[in-house]
Amino acid sequence: QETSVPKFGKGILNLVGQDSTWTMKVAARMQFLGIGQWGENDQGNLASVGSNFLVRRARLKFNGFAYSPKFKYKIELGLSNRDISGASEFTHDAPRYILDAFVMWNFHKNFELWIGQTKLPGNIERVVSSANLQMVDRSLLNSRFTIDRDMGVQLRHKFNISEKFIVKEALAISQGEGRNVTKGNLGGYQYTARVDFLPFGGFTGNTQFIGSDLKREEQPKLMIGAAYDFNNNAVKTRSNQGSYMFTNTGFYETDIKTLYINSMFKYNGFSFMGEYADRNAGNAVARNEDGTATGDIVQVGKGLNLMSGYLFKNNWEVSGRYTSVELDKNITNKNKETQYTLGVSKYIVGHKLKVQTDATYLNEINGPEGLIYRLQLEVHF
Amino acid sequence: QETSVPKFGKGILNLVGQDSTWTMKVAARMQFLGIGQWGENDQGNLASVGSNFLVRRARLKFNGFAYSPKFKYKIELGLSNRDISGASEFTHDAPRYILDAFVMWNFHKNFELWIGQTKLPGNIERVVSSANLQMVDRSLLNSRFTIDRDMGVQLRHKFNISEKFIVKEALAISQGEGRNVTKGNLGGYQYTARVDFLPFGGFTGNTQFIGSDLKREEQPKLMIGAAYDFNNNAVKTRSNQGSYMFTNTGFYETDIKTLYINSMFKYNGFSFMGEYADRNAGNAVARNEDGTATGDIVQVGKGLNLMSGYLFKNNWEVSGRYTSVELDKNITNKNKETQYTLGVSKYIVGHKLKVQTDATYLNEINGPEGLIYRLQLEVHF
Amino acid sequence: QETSVPKFGKGILNLVGQDSTWTMKVAARMQFLGIGQWGENDQGNLASVGSNFLVRRARLKFNGFAYSPKFKYKIELGLSNRDISGASEFTHDAPRYILDAFVMWNFHKNFELWIGQTKLPGNIERVVSSANLQMVDRSLLNSRFTIDRDMGVQLRHKFNISEKFIVKEALAISQGEGRNVTKGNLGGYQYTARVDFLPFGGFTGNTQFIGSDLKREEQPKLMIGAAYDFNNNAVKTRSNQGSYMFTNTGFYETDIKTLYINSMFKYNGFSFMGEYADRNAGNAVARNEDGTATGDIVQVGKGLNLMSGYLFKNNWEVSGRYTSVELDKNITNKNKETQYTLGVSKYIVGHKLKVQTDATYLNEINGPEGLIYRLQLEVHF
Repeated sequence: QETSVPKFGKGILNLVGQDSTWTMKVAARMQFLGIGQWGENDQGNLASVGSNFLVRRARLKFNGFAYSPKFKYKIELGLSNRDISGASEFTHDAPRYILDAFVMWNFHKNFELWIGQTKLPGNIERVVSSANLQMVDRSLLNSRFTIDRDMGVQLRHKFNISEKFIVKEALAISQGEGRNVTKGNLGGYQYTARVDFLPFGGFTGNTQFIGSDLKREEQPKLMIGAAYDFNNNAVKTRSNQGSYMFTNTGFYETDIKTLYINSMFKYNGFSFMGEYADRNAGNAVARNEDGTATGDIVQVGKGLNLMSGYLFKNNWEVSGRYTSVELDKNITNKNKETQYTLGVSKYIVGHKLKVQTDATYLNEINGPEGLIYRLQLEVHF
Repeated sequence: QETSVPKFGKGILNLVGQDSTWTMKVAARMQFLGIGQWGENDQGNLASVGSNFLVRRARLKFNGFAYSPKFKYKIELGLSNRDISGASEFTHDAPRYILDAFVMWNFHKNFELWIGQTKLPGNIERVVSSANLQMVDRSLLNSRFTIDRDMGVQLRHKFNISEKFIVKEALAISQGEGRNVTKGNLGGYQYTARVDFLPFGGFTGNTQFIGSDLKREEQPKLMIGAAYDFNNNAVKTRSNQGSYMFTNTGFYETDIKTLYINSMFKYNGFSFMGEYADRNAGNAVARNEDGTATGDIVQVGKGLNLMSGYLFKNNWEVSGRYTSVELDKNITNKNKETQYTLGVSKYIVGHKLKVQTDATYLNEINGPEGLIYRLQLEVHF
Repeated sequence: QETSVPKFGKGILNLVGQDSTWTMKVAARMQFLGIGQWGENDQGNLASVGSNFLVRRARLKFNGFAYSPKFKYKIELGLSNRDISGASEFTHDAPRYILDAFVMWNFHKNFELWIGQTKLPGNIERVVSSANLQMVDRSLLNSRFTIDRDMGVQLRHKFNISEKFIVKEALAISQGEGRNVTKGNLGGYQYTARVDFLPFGGFTGNTQFIGSDLKREEQPKLMIGAAYDFNNNAVKTRSNQGSYMFTNTGFYETDIKTLYINSMFKYNGFSFMGEYADRNAGNAVARNEDGTATGDIVQVGKGLNLMSGYLFKNNWEVSGRYTSVELDKNITNKNKETQYTLGVSKYIVGHKLKVQTDATYLNEINGPEGLIYRLQLEVHF
């Protein structure tokens, strides 16, 4: 038995159960966010359209192993109002308090079976924890195309092609309507596969899913991969995310397929993250049984997100991001949107205590312009 | 002062405050459940009617004593969506996060006064913690007849008739509308009394309310008892559970009485649990002031639940359950329902790490048949 | 690194991170409350109008410093239904789980910058923690005039005029719609300023915001001060509290100003707390754009609250309270209300384990009388 109180940023408690029968790392974090927004007014000038100051995220995290080191678990709970929002009849009208709750069973060699609710192996920006982002928050590509979390099982595996070249694979079968759905599966199940290639070896400290090159990689490190998501008879407008597509007799169901290409590169303080997403659907326009359109439309289209940053020796970082989202205009009647973001971060204790700020210019083809300024403080025990 | 990190399954932390002025055991658990359901279709064949994969329960538990060993407390919090569901105007439109929050004051000899919210001394299947069930979940009798938790006070007492023969009594006065009701008492109060007889002495490790004979009792151990619940001017259809019986001017109020007979027997790996419930009401049909029926009907009737299991030396268990619920057909217009369940459990670390599966065949007189298959994993620190 | 389990009432865990890089005190509390209420019936006699038994408050608290002793934080979470109630579209339809979440940065000498959500520097009765009240609960003045908590920044400062005479100042800029508002700021911002004078030196153990003279001050100790709150273009009926003033096109906005005078005096077991509140508004009657009244009215008027108690050597305390609230009759059409409360408290372990009871007589000019009896148990680790 052991109770260890680690250094700042390494958790609140590191527990080792008697006879080393289990371990638990307890951690907590909170994010304070201030936002100012400006949009085009009737005269075509930018004018303030709102501001908000909030506890953006507040989380409790527990992970370790139970009974055997081959049987690990993770629980992550949300405390802030935006963390737990999203109650619906499908979540028993209860707030979505649990973010992650799953076990990882290393049942054979390099194979792990995951059971429970956690992030699906989809786009890289989502997989990067909201605690480890290079900018204040994720991009428009993520909000339009991510498949976030779901309930189900995942099979994880990795192997080496050469001494350095690592390949990681993941396969998931999920309910397909997003996290905390406890009222039963609707439509069919969701199937997700991802493969990641790390040709130059693992990132120092497994940081391929952590923003910024805080480790200042001495050798170039690259991860490149792809994910494919097939949501069979999906009932929501963005695969397992978005709105439910109700009809006057039940739900509109159509197959939704999403392809992601993910990449991360880090070298000597420089970092680059790129992702591409492409979504299509069997029949994107939701219809009632009599053929009339319900008004819901699957958000088909594609997106590109490119982000890069350079970390100075004093742990200040300057980063830039370009995002474009182009939904299928004929189907969704939405114009192409482009986002340009400039970010500045000061990592006082890495991602554990940091101040980040960014400014985003939005531009919609044939539509309005906008500006968002954000300032965020993260404290992560 | 002492911080002890126990073995797996014995809690996360065992704290003893400085000068032994208090103690606290912190525990946590989570249950992952997969369900498949089949029902009779128009052709009279069994067809899939749904599936669900969910975090069924996730809990945090705190218990110990405060200031004096004679003044104990327990807090249990629900985290999963099904744990915290049930918000209504009577719970301040807030999720029902607190399951238990009460103190137990041993004010005199064998007497304890309980103050706060916890389970009422009703049917045995409810009193068995959801962490310690012999099958994946409780029976139909419990869902129809339990009185679960409520707010109020309980007086607990025990004494020995002979050296071995123990008698335990409980008396509760409660608000009578179930847990987390913070908007005031409606109708009258609820009075519950229970007495349990243990003629052959206490179960090893106080396991009379724990499913399965994991202790492999060397001598036969029996608990038999009865409980009686009188809900004065009750306003819900199942005593303090079910739906509120609204009228066009307020609430329909009627006395609801429920009788339970409970029994538990364990010997050498064999276990048996039986319970009988019988509910009646002053006037079961809810009516408005002008005498018209509101549509709500007190769920009067009776139920029988018999469950038995045998635990093999390798900690595999086979169990069987028979449940019948027969509501008063004349009043409720509901047919008799029967449930046959076959369960298999593997207790890896007792109830703390276990895999359970069961299959249930449902049959309703003059009604449809159904089949439910469930698979559950419990991890309990 | 250090894990300390303190005495009862001093917290659950006192953690000191490795290399003293951070600290955390973890605490928890719960309050069990029973209420009986009587009101005037048609015959003018007092008759029971309801009762309630509930877990009034249950909280988890975390505080300490992160990375540097100059950078402190506090998190307080509510668990009980009344703690977390108040969900609305403005809180993302999610329960208000977070009470406090803020950091305090001592950036220069006696200056502290607070960032996040916590209590505003308003009326003293609110600033006294609900764990440290002299009576079962706060007065009518508080429920009508408090500005409670909000999101934003506060600047705190203190200095000495003479060796003993301390002055403490606070300045806050907030969103102005109360705690947990995550959907953006409405109307203008809220500005609060408070100054407190302690002419005879600090209270023993900084107890100026703690009810009752549990320290039995050997010298008279006094705090007197004033606070002024200006809510620019407020959209709620009680500054940042009360109801939203919707119009048929959006929100009614008006400046709301509230003045508080606060005082606390303690000497040798005797304590006195007094507060005065005065609220006015630009245009108290909410109107639609076309000039028609919406029905909402800013609760302008004034209140006086005087409370005193004497703590006997055996830690029993008798206290009395007089409260009057006089809203502007011409505008609000509400009569003056007066509250007389007599309280008895037994502090078993100070405010950490105590039983409190009080009886309140309410009187409304030209209106009904009422009586409230309350009994409460507090357990605070």
